[in-house]
Order: sequence, then structure tokens, then C-alpha cells
Amino acid sequence: MAKRAYPLAKVYGLLEPGPVVLVATQHRGRANVMPMSWYTMMEFEPPLVGCVLSGRNFSFTALNATRQCTINIPTAELAAQVVGCGNVSGRRIDKWKRFGLTPVPGKVVAAPLVDECYASLECTVADKRLVNRYNFFVLEVKKAWVDPACKAPRTLHHRGRGLFALAEQTIRLRSGKK
Amino acid sequence: MAKRAYPLAKVYGLLEPGPVVLVATQHRGRANVMPMSWYTMMEFEPPLVGCVLSGRNFSFTALNATRQCTINIPTAELAAQVVGCGNVSGRRIDKWKRFGLTPVPGKVVAAPLVDECYASLECTVADKRLVNRYNFFVLEVKKAWVDPACKAPRTLHHRGRGLFALAEQTIRLRSGKK
Repeated sequence: MAKRAYPLAKVYGLLEPGPVVLVATQHRGRANVMPMSWYTMMEFEPPLVGCVLSGRNFSFTALNATRQCTINIPTAELAAQVVGCGNVSGRRIDKWKRFGLTPVPGKVVAAPLVDECYASLECTVADKRLVNRYNFFVLEVKKAWVDPACKAPRTLHHRGRGLFALAEQTIRLRSGKK
Repeated sequence: MAKRAYPLAKVYGLLEPGPVVLVATQHRGRANVMPMSWYTMMEFEPPLVGCVLSGRNFSFTALNATRQCTINIPTAELAAQVVGCGNVSGRRIDKWKRFGLTPVPGKVVAAPLVDECYASLECTVADKRLVNRYNFFVLEVKKAWVDPACKAPRTLHHRGRGLFALAEQTIRLRSGKK
């Protein structure tokens, strides 16, 4: 997708609705990608994102070692690939090839962006204090990319066990806050 | 709403899609309620939920002091009340009266449940290590309530500045994971 640089101050609007995302890592010459729903915004700017990765996941090892990843936001068209990426391990399988996803280089981190996703965030680990207890990383978004042609992304919201809600129709209400 | 007790092991399916929630607190004889989107699941069972409350909020003071709250999940019908609760402070206004919300007692914590929400979670603070740095609380869900009549809740997903996506239509894909 033809992504352009996106203001860091607006990143919260991408992640606040809670879409499932694809986390990509690069470690010891191997790129990997996995779906994630357990994350939250923690600060507007610079954008901080807290997230939990299971310690059993190959991506946990990569993130913990390299302190770098990308967060990529898929739309409903990628639903099968997203679930597929969650059903196999990058230890044994090249998920990029298996699911037809394209790694493209970022500007800041070694981990690749997922080209098929409409938005990608380059992140570094900012705080590991809760990693031992909860597998919880605080990430800082260093660079953001969004495809400006994707005006109303139909994002996927995981309800558990492969059931997804699709967020699409939007309503606007007067808010005095961000 | 006629809520019934809900298994703690299934709570993640309520929060994982990232709906905006109403956090209710009870402190010094006053109940308060505010919308929140910055939270994440952190563990399945017992369910742990990490969340950020702005230190400027009246609810932050209450949660920090009492270590108790409820998390309540509204549907699209409550959109105006949800945004309204975020535009005024409980320091000056009784939001329950202003927005026609009904506090009902829980079983475990002193904070009330929001009757109009289809699901409510009674929570205590489990970890405050990241409160000073990020206003980040780790909550443990002690008791969960869901209205079994609400089979396909249309949840609200905040995109920022009063713009909400509605999550409704669901798709099911084969998943080997939770």
C-alpha cells in the first residue's frame, strides 16, 4: 500500500478503537509476524503503547531481545491471514510466504512493515519493568505510516476463538476531549 | 438490565475487541463514572486488565484511594451518555443524574455497576507499580455480570474526538487459539 508518514500525535486514533494488529519482528536474520489484541494506548505524544505478548510466542523472544517491532493494522480483507498467523508458530514456518504477506523495510527499526496493512507503526521498547510479571512491554512509536487512500478502514475486533466483530459505520458526537 | 453472573474465564471476550467502557468509582460517599478506552486484557484467569486513567480525572483520585472500581460496557444506544460523561467532571456534577444512568450495588466492591450497560465487571487494583510513571493500573476482575439477553451487542469503539466506530457484524474463522 502507498503509505505516507503520519503525525505521531494522531496515532492514538488508530489504536484506541482496539483493532486486532499484526506485530512484526526481526531477529537473527528472521522476520516474523503475529496477531495481537492485548494492547492499549498509554500516552498521546510521543505515543506509548502497552502490550502483552505470551512468553510462549516466538515473537516474545524477538521483541525481548531486539527491543524493536512494528505494529500493523489490517482491515477485514486480511481476516483469514490474520487468524492464520495466530494458528502457527514462526519457529517452524515462514508466515510471510505462507500467508502472502509482504515485509517492507521501515525507516527507524529493523523489523519490517506489513505492506498489506493500511497503517504501520515503527516501535521500540521503552519500559520492561512489567515484562517478568505480566509479559507487558511499553512501546514507544517512533514513526507512523498510513495509506491516505484508506479513509474508512473496516477493522477487525477479536471477540475470542476466531470470532471477530467488524467496525465500520461511524457516528460522530460532540466531544470536548481528544 | 437483568444481568447474571458470568464466568471469569470468558471475560477476555468482552474486553478484547476494545469497546469504550464506563469506569465507575465510589469515594467519600460519592459515586462517579467516566468513559475509558485506554485499557487491555493482561491475563485470562483470574482476568487482569491494565488501564490508564488521566491523573487530572476525579476518577483517578477515587481509584487510587479506594483501589476499587467497576468496568461497564455500553452499547451504541448509550453513545450520547458515554460522550457526555467524558465532557464533564464528577468533581462538579452528579453524572448519574445528568445522564440518566442508574448505579446499582455490586457484590464484591463498593463501586456501583451501571445498570444500563449490558456487562459489568467488579475490579480491585492488583498492581500500582506503573501508576506514578504512566497512570497505569493493573486491575483484577473479581466478579463479572452479563445480560444474557444481549446476544450481539453493538459496541462503541472510539476513534478520537467523539468519532466512534460501531462493531456489530461478526465473522467466524477457524482459530486454534483462545
